[in-house]
Amino acid sequence: MRSTLARASLSIVANPLIDDRDVELILDEVLDLRALAALPYFADHDRDTYEMVLESARSVARESLFPQYKTIDSAPPVLVDGKVAVHPALRPLFAKLVELGFTAAPRPHEVGGAQLPLAVFSLATAYLMAGNLSVYCYVGLTQGAAHLLEAFGSAELRTTYMEPMYRGEMTGTMALTEPQAGSSLADITTTATPEGDHYSMHGSKIFISGGDHDLTSNIVHMTLGRLAGAPPGMKGVSLFCVPKKRVENGALVDNDVAVTGVVHKIGWRGLPSVLLGYGERNDCHGWLVGEPHQGIRYMFQMMNEARIMVGLNAAATASVAYHESLEYARVRTQGRSMSARDPGAKQVAIIEHADVRRMLLRQKAIVEGGLTLLARVSYFSDLATHGGDARAQLLLDLLTPVAKSFPAEKGFESNALALQIHGGYGYSSEYLPEAWLRDQKLNSIHEGTTGIQAADLLGRRVLAKGGTALAALGTEIMTVCKRARNAGVEVSWIDEVERAVVLVGTLTGELASGGLAKPESMLLHATDYLELFSTVVIAWQWLELAAISKEALAGTLPRGRASRDAGYYQAKLHAAQYWIKTELPRIDVLAKLCRDGEDSYGSLDPSWL
Amino acid sequence: MRSTLARASLSIVANPLIDDRDVELILDEVLDLRALAALPYFADHDRDTYEMVLESARSVARESLFPQYKTIDSAPPVLVDGKVAVHPALRPLFAKLVELGFTAAPRPHEVGGAQLPLAVFSLATAYLMAGNLSVYCYVGLTQGAAHLLEAFGSAELRTTYMEPMYRGEMTGTMALTEPQAGSSLADITTTATPEGDHYSMHGSKIFISGGDHDLTSNIVHMTLGRLAGAPPGMKGVSLFCVPKKRVENGALVDNDVAVTGVVHKIGWRGLPSVLLGYGERNDCHGWLVGEPHQGIRYMFQMMNEARIMVGLNAAATASVAYHESLEYARVRTQGRSMSARDPGAKQVAIIEHADVRRMLLRQKAIVEGGLTLLARVSYFSDLATHGGDARAQLLLDLLTPVAKSFPAEKGFESNALALQIHGGYGYSSEYLPEAWLRDQKLNSIHEGTTGIQAADLLGRRVLAKGGTALAALGTEIMTVCKRARNAGVEVSWIDEVERAVVLVGTLTGELASGGLAKPESMLLHATDYLELFSTVVIAWQWLELAAISKEALAGTLPRGRASRDAGYYQAKLHAAQYWIKTELPRIDVLAKLCRDGEDSYGSLDPSWL
Repeated sequence: MRSTLARASLSIVANPLIDDRDVELILDEVLDLRALAALPYFADHDRDTYEMVLESARSVARESLFPQYKTIDSAPPVLVDGKVAVHPALRPLFAKLVELGFTAAPRPHEVGGAQLPLAVFSLATAYLMAGNLSVYCYVGLTQGAAHLLEAFGSAELRTTYMEPMYRGEMTGTMALTEPQAGSSLADITTTATPEGDHYSMHGSKIFISGGDHDLTSNIVHMTLGRLAGAPPGMKGVSLFCVPKKRVENGALVDNDVAVTGVVHKIGWRGLPSVLLGYGERNDCHGWLVGEPHQGIRYMFQMMNEARIMVGLNAAATASVAYHESLEYARVRTQGRSMSARDPGAKQVAIIEHADVRRMLLRQKAIVEGGLTLLARVSYFSDLATHGGDARAQLLLDLLTPVAKSFPAEKGFESNALALQIHGGYGYSSEYLPEAWLRDQKLNSIHEGTTGIQAADLLGRRVLAKGGTALAALGTEIMTVCKRARNAGVEVSWIDEVERAVVLVGTLTGELASGGLAKPESMLLHATDYLELFSTVVIAWQWLELAAISKEALAGTLPRGRASRDAGYYQAKLHAAQYWIKTELPRIDVLAKLCRDGEDSYGSLDPSWL
Repeated sequence: MRSTLARASLSIVANPLIDDRDVELILDEVLDLRALAALPYFADHDRDTYEMVLESARSVARESLFPQYKTIDSAPPVLVDGKVAVHPALRPLFAKLVELGFTAAPRPHEVGGAQLPLAVFSLATAYLMAGNLSVYCYVGLTQGAAHLLEAFGSAELRTTYMEPMYRGEMTGTMALTEPQAGSSLADITTTATPEGDHYSMHGSKIFISGGDHDLTSNIVHMTLGRLAGAPPGMKGVSLFCVPKKRVENGALVDNDVAVTGVVHKIGWRGLPSVLLGYGERNDCHGWLVGEPHQGIRYMFQMMNEARIMVGLNAAATASVAYHESLEYARVRTQGRSMSARDPGAKQVAIIEHADVRRMLLRQKAIVEGGLTLLARVSYFSDLATHGGDARAQLLLDLLTPVAKSFPAEKGFESNALALQIHGGYGYSSEYLPEAWLRDQKLNSIHEGTTGIQAADLLGRRVLAKGGTALAALGTEIMTVCKRARNAGVEVSWIDEVERAVVLVGTLTGELASGGLAKPESMLLHATDYLELFSTVVIAWQWLELAAISKEALAGTLPRGRASRDAGYYQAKLHAAQYWIKTELPRIDVLAKLCRDGEDSYGSLDPSWL
């Protein structure tokens, strides 16, 4: 009888996780793949090889990862005798992702990679994340850790640890956080004392994702610590490679990295978050990566990538829930249209109720706007890294805090709407939306909280290099406005976006000139500024998607295929309208708060609370 | 070693659940208790008896309910052999609440009640809910069920079931929802066929809170169903009393109410939500309550009370999390002030960071604004029910959807901020904020979703009786504006609130005149309208709290005590400023959406998605 609650009792079609048409549209119409094709690094690739990668991601995500999601979510990792055992279902899934080459796909051939553009890789991994974020994250973290050794490690570290990581034989972690050093990395106290060819490590790390598990025999912790005598603060932090087991004479030897606890996380239940103790027996060896005291700088390479990964994960987590609620809204019947007078008439699907469509369209705007942005920043990364495109680098740097925090913050709201559409059913763990809501909440916290992203954007990135990045962004958006005008997009939408671009420029200038004297008051509304900035950036994505839709409907698409059905483009136009008419006008209130320096919390004495 | 994560490792003071000073302020300065004292129903009470009730609520909440919260949350009810076993810790807690008289406190002496004003009862129960919402809800549901019998039941039903419920010997439920009838109560299909002195019941109910448990020997399900031959729709729904065990010759006999499943709820883990099957053996007796086909009308008496209870629960759940995050922000150190140049300096408490204070002040504004509103509507209920005050009744009816949905929607956001302030710790179930976030999510769903509240407010309540309720609300707010002006509150705040009142009036008139022709287009932005309306209503609460604070600081409080410390009032002024300067200006965008009939989702064809 419990089946009356079970999702299985509804004739629901399979969740697509991510809409394939969106991925195709982004690759073919939003990005210009010709610019990538022109770069030597990507010479082996073309649209067909991209499609193969995407196809392998979507099949494994739909056929293997997603079907195990609930199973894995229901039985989180356990710590037994100092070792973390993960759900047994994870092992074949991780092996599958390794086999398909996801561990090293965007990396160079010489380290075993496929030199895949990040733009394509991001879209491919979005399927994996939407299908089962925990499983993918072993791969993502390992790639990030290996990349650090690739970029800064000695030949020996590369051979010993990087190569096995790219081959998926070892996994990697980012071991930054300590009990007293979370947002404040300057306060890291883990120490490294010279001892022969290595350093003796001592310290405690917490919240280390994938910090222990039984999927591979070894784990490599890319660790921030301090050399003996290092200066205090950020400038004294170095990067170390600290394996769970060190390689000695070809054998793996325990390296005195104790698992001192496992965090009972409310989501990401397939990926253990652990507490580590280095050197409890004074036998923990670490190797310096690169130069002394450069740890923060090195780690930021990985962190910027990780922030994009978090944003992508957030968009993917919102996407899978959006599709779940969309299908539910199609099959769940309840009530009648307001004008229906016959109480005996058949009930309608809840998607017929305008307020349910509101909740769906809002999710769609967040999910697809976010995904487009993430593909775009990944594309900028490709152009910058492999094409030496300085302008793309500026745009990437500027947009990273938005790409990380927008999907995290609005994605949480989007996930809550997916639950809400499910009504009472959504409040039960028989249905999946509640699990994704839990998963999503981490994204506003890890890899720099939203507050940190906001301070980074306003305090550093928009003002960097005399505001040239902001000017480049303005040019990008204005180019899209022109495309939209030519395509016949509603003029009032374009006017709104143009006005928003001017507002961002003016406001930023005002804040910057005040901020030189008083950084604290400039940053008082950093979070409001981030929200404003993000709203405009997403409006840009939607204006371009609207322009493309108009072109497609008129048969004037400059590139790619125009064969998708008209309804698909109509929905895009409605989502664009929603974002530009409903969300974009909110920026005026935010701008006013920033300008006025509204000081209700600024001048609030903590002792009064 | 797991203790590095444990809350216990921080020297945190006990969570107050609700700030006693706020309760006192609301009773003494916001409400006019003299108006209650003048009513015969409350003749036995005075400020001292109120204080005794409040004191007993806060002690039991702090000393008994809250300490068991985590224990109960961690081990949800289980269904074994058709019976639900709840956590054993619940039994003494429920018994305690019964012993303290909470089951019948606001009800008349003649049924065993204490004739306590609902205003006082609401504030007292806010402590209980904040301490352990599940435990309290057995009491709340029982009171609601008994009240239905008190109002509409026969003498026999009152003796047999109402009295034991008020005595806490039986508990009660609202058995409305069926698999096909959630938001759409018109579609209820449970049937009642005459059989001697009773009806034979058949049907399935789902999501019945407290629908089975082992705290009391009997449970009374106040059930919506249909008499054989009843007309379709709402007009054919009747109310029945269907006990788990019926009383026959003084003995309790099984009444064929089968527990067919238990919902795995994500929160409210102490209160089982069950699936019931009536009459699987054709031996389920029900008794008609009141007149045939009046079930919806009768149930709405309970539902309006239940909606206020939901709003109160939402405010309480946000309150306990707010206090938890406030204390955490005081003791958790991280980072330094932006102007600090010495990386070796001691870290500061995170409350020193403006963005953390932003998150705290936002929670405070939502929590205390919501609590003030709930006390106010309870007070209106007292005046209406026991003083025949028609104007109070109008205001109560008008404000109920706001009192229910504002704390639910914004409370969820507030609970998410409490988690965010805890950073990575907040993402673990070692800390409590994640549990309250789960609890909170139900409040936008049960007792009428937010979408239902929005349609009810705009489609019915603001327009009822030619808009007299809205006019009365305008007068109430304008009176507070005058008080604020006299008290010397910032003129720009008062101007903003006055402008908002005019906007609500004008907008409502415009929507109503258009709506006569086209109800669907009038209601297209009902949710935006609800948000706008709620924002103004909460601004009204804050303006009055600001006025009171100014009066207190100047020593001109007309009633009550002025002995609280100045910082307390300063914080109130800052929260008022926050709400009026940060939130209130957002209503213009919402008003424009309503006016323009922005149709992105309205005209979206479901097949396009």
